[in-house]
Amino acid sequence: MTGDMRASERRLGQHLVITREDVHRAYDAIGQYLRRTPVIQLDLAGPVTLKLEQLQCAGSFKARGAFTNLLLRDVPSAGVAAASGGNHGVAVAYAAHRLGIPARIFVPTVSSPAKIERIRQLADLVVIGDRYADALEAAQQWIAASGAMSVHAFDGQETILGQATLALELDEQAGPLDTVLVPVGGGGLIAGVASYLAGNARIIGVEPDGAPTLARARAAGAPVDAPAGSIAVDALAPRRVGEVVFPITSAYVEDVVLVDDDAIRSAQRTLWQTARIAAEPAASVGVAALLTGAYKAAPGERVAVIITGANMSPSQLDS
Amino acid sequence: MTGDMRASERRLGQHLVITREDVHRAYDAIGQYLRRTPVIQLDLAGPVTLKLEQLQCAGSFKARGAFTNLLLRDVPSAGVAAASGGNHGVAVAYAAHRLGIPARIFVPTVSSPAKIERIRQLADLVVIGDRYADALEAAQQWIAASGAMSVHAFDGQETILGQATLALELDEQAGPLDTVLVPVGGGGLIAGVASYLAGNARIIGVEPDGAPTLARARAAGAPVDAPAGSIAVDALAPRRVGEVVFPITSAYVEDVVLVDDDAIRSAQRTLWQTARIAAEPAASVGVAALLTGAYKAAPGERVAVIITGANMSPSQLDS
Repeated sequence: MTGDMRASERRLGQHLVITREDVHRAYDAIGQYLRRTPVIQLDLAGPVTLKLEQLQCAGSFKARGAFTNLLLRDVPSAGVAAASGGNHGVAVAYAAHRLGIPARIFVPTVSSPAKIERIRQLADLVVIGDRYADALEAAQQWIAASGAMSVHAFDGQETILGQATLALELDEQAGPLDTVLVPVGGGGLIAGVASYLAGNARIIGVEPDGAPTLARARAAGAPVDAPAGSIAVDALAPRRVGEVVFPITSAYVEDVVLVDDDAIRSAQRTLWQTARIAAEPAASVGVAALLTGAYKAAPGERVAVIITGANMSPSQLDS
Repeated sequence: MTGDMRASERRLGQHLVITREDVHRAYDAIGQYLRRTPVIQLDLAGPVTLKLEQLQCAGSFKARGAFTNLLLRDVPSAGVAAASGGNHGVAVAYAAHRLGIPARIFVPTVSSPAKIERIRQLADLVVIGDRYADALEAAQQWIAASGAMSVHAFDGQETILGQATLALELDEQAGPLDTVLVPVGGGGLIAGVASYLAGNARIIGVEPDGAPTLARARAAGAPVDAPAGSIAVDALAPRRVGEVVFPITSAYVEDVVLVDDDAIRSAQRTLWQTARIAAEPAASVGVAALLTGAYKAAPGERVAVIITGANMSPSQLDS
């Protein structure tokens, strides 16, 4: 009883601490396999710096976490397995292919055809169930049976560490910043970015109002199930944010704002029409927050938005 | 007779000289209206730096020349007029709109619907004839009648000067470079880039084999008519390179290589599939030259390719 109390006290207020040194070490390991994605300054309801992470290998930031898992952990001979709404699956398949490691990827049927096709070219693909949780369950069964290493889409230490390297680059390229708007699904990216920039920039999460995982978790004080009904559902639709992720966001994320599907679609079109940037719906939520005023920057505020991925059919951009 | 000889001798070997100081002065004038487009390092048949100029205002490098004309020349009350295969028309319309100057733009029917629509939103639009020369003739008639100022798509001093600012940025972002591959239509971009980088990098022109304006001019020793039958025809299809442009390229451009339409389409798909870069066919010729070996870089050679524009229907990128 006393022992339980002590363990509970240690957990209370505790979270995985990722230092800047940890992130630099990870960056040294994965940098040669990744692109240093550029930034561009645009005027979208005021000046804003976009981090063009959709230009990353495998089409999204998830390549950072994938390589970090495969390079910093001991990979068994059975290889790796992952469950993913899509981009994480593409990224793990890509990283494993690059490193010569066997990979089996489980994706729900809601994943975009573009993402599924890309995984099929690089790894063993299993399409199963209609939500992220279904794919996760199937992946866990396979991992238990085969001994393959699990690579979590967001709630793993190396995954968060890898995504944090995006903040390292952004800080070098465009820092110091006042505010960074970060798309949120399972929370791996925002946990990494917030860990790196904690104390140096205000971190704001942005979610589709149809898939408000972090907003619901903050309201409840813990990860809870949320709806998953948005056009961004193929990339931002786990049922809930992660258990490792949540306390990090509680410590470092100042606010979470919501945008609706019309605003997301409109932001996606604006990015194409004004700057020929191709971004998937999930990658457009930060710009949607600026254009709708869901997040209002003060005059002179140095704001950055992360454009997270572009694994979609380009014909989505035809207006 | 003796007088004619002397004039001829003065022209021989003479060309418009644009100094680095000229380019810096132009950049100071136009910089606030333009984007500093980023570069990214990729591996495409070897390491290569891409200048992502398709992210420029109005979707192509032509915005540089357009703003330079409108800001450095005296604009009459009748405003400006331009004839253009498309991107130059979009750029002049955009710059005039931004600066509150009336503009009338003449485009041939072969222009892409995306470009025509964009011009219609910003300026008076006249669609006429099926080749660039037809639009140019109509524009010249309008200019003679109205007193409007002509903004040439490639063969004007300020146009070349403006395009040269791209080389200034590229040199700051990725220099020193060994080689720069530049798409060629009328030659305004390559004349500007070559003027700025002369003596510091090898400049290679790249043209569709169906629209070899500079290759034909070099073979003939002067601008001559060339065919205009390529998928890149809406952006790289004047009948011939410019009279001002040609001697600059003769002085500074080391070689011109040709790529066919299949190679252009394949390069366009590769840019999308490997890096989520949307580029129009004309903007993909440099990458086509690398992927086909039309230009073979030596080991360790620092090569840059200019991605010039992305004014097209995104559904072109669906494979």
